Amino acid sequence: MVERRNPIPVAEAVQRVMKYQKNGQTEYVSINESFGRYLAEHITATNDVPHFDRSPYDGFAVRAVDTKEASQENSVEFEVVDHIGAGMVSKEKVGAFQAVRIMTGAQMPAQCDAVIMLELTKGYEKNGKTYMSIKRPFNSGDNISFRGEDAKEGDILIKKGMKINPGIQAILATFGYAKVPVAKKPLIGLYATGTELLDVDDPLEPGKIRNSNSYMIAAQIERAGADVKYFGKLPDEFETCYEAVKSALDQVDMLITTGGVSVGDYDYLPAIYDKMNAEVLFNKVAMRPGSVTTVAQANGKLLFGLSGNPSACYVGFELFTRPIIRKMLFAEKLHLRKERAILTVDFLKANPFTRFVRSTLTVQDGKLMISPSGVDKSNIVMSLAGANAFMILPGGTRSFLTGSEVDVLLLEDFTGSEWPW
Amino acid sequence: MVERRNPIPVAEAVQRVMKYQKNGQTEYVSINESFGRYLAEHITATNDVPHFDRSPYDGFAVRAVDTKEASQENSVEFEVVDHIGAGMVSKEKVGAFQAVRIMTGAQMPAQCDAVIMLELTKGYEKNGKTYMSIKRPFNSGDNISFRGEDAKEGDILIKKGMKINPGIQAILATFGYAKVPVAKKPLIGLYATGTELLDVDDPLEPGKIRNSNSYMIAAQIERAGADVKYFGKLPDEFETCYEAVKSALDQVDMLITTGGVSVGDYDYLPAIYDKMNAEVLFNKVAMRPGSVTTVAQANGKLLFGLSGNPSACYVGFELFTRPIIRKMLFAEKLHLRKERAILTVDFLKANPFTRFVRSTLTVQDGKLMISPSGVDKSNIVMSLAGANAFMILPGGTRSFLTGSEVDVLLLEDFTGSEWPW
Repeated sequence: MVERRNPIPVAEAVQRVMKYQKNGQTEYVSINESFGRYLAEHITATNDVPHFDRSPYDGFAVRAVDTKEASQENSVEFEVVDHIGAGMVSKEKVGAFQAVRIMTGAQMPAQCDAVIMLELTKGYEKNGKTYMSIKRPFNSGDNISFRGEDAKEGDILIKKGMKINPGIQAILATFGYAKVPVAKKPLIGLYATGTELLDVDDPLEPGKIRNSNSYMIAAQIERAGADVKYFGKLPDEFETCYEAVKSALDQVDMLITTGGVSVGDYDYLPAIYDKMNAEVLFNKVAMRPGSVTTVAQANGKLLFGLSGNPSACYVGFELFTRPIIRKMLFAEKLHLRKERAILTVDFLKANPFTRFVRSTLTVQDGKLMISPSGVDKSNIVMSLAGANAFMILPGGTRSFLTGSEVDVLLLEDFTGSEWPW
Repeated sequence: MVERRNPIPVAEAVQRVMKYQKNGQTEYVSINESFGRYLAEHITATNDVPHFDRSPYDGFAVRAVDTKEASQENSVEFEVVDHIGAGMVSKEKVGAFQAVRIMTGAQMPAQCDAVIMLELTKGYEKNGKTYMSIKRPFNSGDNISFRGEDAKEGDILIKKGMKINPGIQAILATFGYAKVPVAKKPLIGLYATGTELLDVDDPLEPGKIRNSNSYMIAAQIERAGADVKYFGKLPDEFETCYEAVKSALDQVDMLITTGGVSVGDYDYLPAIYDKMNAEVLFNKVAMRPGSVTTVAQANGKLLFGLSGNPSACYVGFELFTRPIIRKMLFAEKLHLRKERAILTVDFLKANPFTRFVRSTLTVQDGKLMISPSGVDKSNIVMSLAGANAFMILPGGTRSFLTGSEVDVLLLEDFTGSEWPW
């Protein structure tokens, strides 16, 4: 009566899914739309920075040789022959004991090789001309930002796979990337199954609940960097589900279904995979929640059969679907970032299965601290709201005490971790 | 010749800006568009969860009283009178020694008060009827998820100001929030000033550089949760700038300009504030970079005069503009989140000013570690790309050595910190 399934370890399950990883595609978007996207190529310097010798200060550009005799006792006088701001280029040929008044960021006049800060000079007028004098000598090269000092043309500045942040936006603009090569967002199909599901704007009915998984998974897909195509809800009817799943898969890069993967009498996904000739990679994982998570592949396309239980659904997506998405976004480290953290509560009850406890990661005196984000019952959606991490409690006979160190997986991070964890 | 300005401490500058903080406004968006937005109201449970007594397992619903005599030696037999999945409601009136086959999530039949897991039963057919038998007794209430067990109608589930994450999406859907009250995004105007600025798709010209600040700040605005209205570039001409700034301010919640706030001969912002009768809150802050950051207010609207230097511009936004935006997004803690981290390099040169060093925050063995994200010269945009934090090095005579603890400000965080830091 009850189908017997063979639970496999989490690591083995992840490995089976990762065999079907695919590279992403590149598309070019305007720099105005690139914030938050993932770079599909390394970004190189298209020119030296600065691309001309420039003044880092407000002051005077001079020939250093003319300053040699200056001292506290002996002021040296310069005639100010030009006055340039950033973006201007002096047309004067600066000669002996001449100076150009220069603003921060302006290009050095060709004959000059030092800048004297404004506050070290004394300015005055004489016979209708402008002068300044100084009381100390300068060396050739003093106070100049030289061409190529910050970056040389051809340097790799940012590696592909990086999420574009404000600093990267600045670099893209500096080097003229009006169009930015970014990873095309994978398109993830989504079906919720279950006769018990109401729409979000439906009034409650006896025995029924509102469909929350679709909204949750859609947000998880978006957070992971992909686009979602929501196909709707499916009733627990075999033929309807079969046709819907088969046709949806053709339209997307991978398909997620929620519900219908357990061994209940209305769980049709196993039979659907069978009729589709999809290869089931696994249908039971030695973990809680999410043990019934099922992943199949049809012609290399992945079908993620996530549990209808919200917490199990959430975990299944993050462990199995997200790394496949991250690969298509050119990420180097595909898996949830793993760190060590200190447990702030006791888990006294041993558990034979590896548990992924939705948790809140905080920092205390520079140390990562982890505590469950709510009552840890797998049917409670509330505890997901405060979760920014999973704590991993390995299965076995031991309990876990306050103050002990445990592995945690970060949910809001884009650095990632290598596999195996 | 050089205008003397009075640098004020960072804390004092922040305080002067925060006097002009304003509350945000609420708007309702579809749940499909609410991910990543900020809640403008507390979210309460609109019904009990579960809203009916339900089975957490696949199994049989029975009257516990009928199981009392069951034992290893004495099987007790039940007639299976109905079969319900999640979303269905049994129409049978369950009598003595009768059972309903029930799936996970289905509503308990009215007469039943216990669920027996499928694997603890033995099923068989007899005379065309279906039976199951058990070998142990159950108590009333065994294996039932009771109405209201997870949440009671009226409970506050999520506080306003929270950024909507996948778990919150699930809660919103569960409780029928088809329209979600979120903070209206403040609209931040942006002008870049400087004759030296080229557009991102312009070829380089002698003495000129591409405008990178606008793209950077636009991304910072978006990251902070607001919308940007980019007005374009302004040449260093007083009248043009004055008219542009004045008219732009009317169209936005606050206005950012980059450049033109120093004491160079083409720095017109001070004169513009003057002509607008704007009150300058400060024009010099005892910090590096960003010492020339200027903030003014006109009729309660803030004008942020950020430095034209990319790093100074970046810091100025995060310290002074971001908290004002966060307030309008109903955040509880308005300022960049502060934590302690361990320094991985030496800073041997003492500095009289408080420094905000753009840095990369990592975790090692559960401890926060901080290192500069690049060469720390304020004109180098490259080091901004890897920055996910600022390290704060207080001004003074001391140096900072590897292994010592310093304050850090997190740039990609939405938890925030209270003021004063």
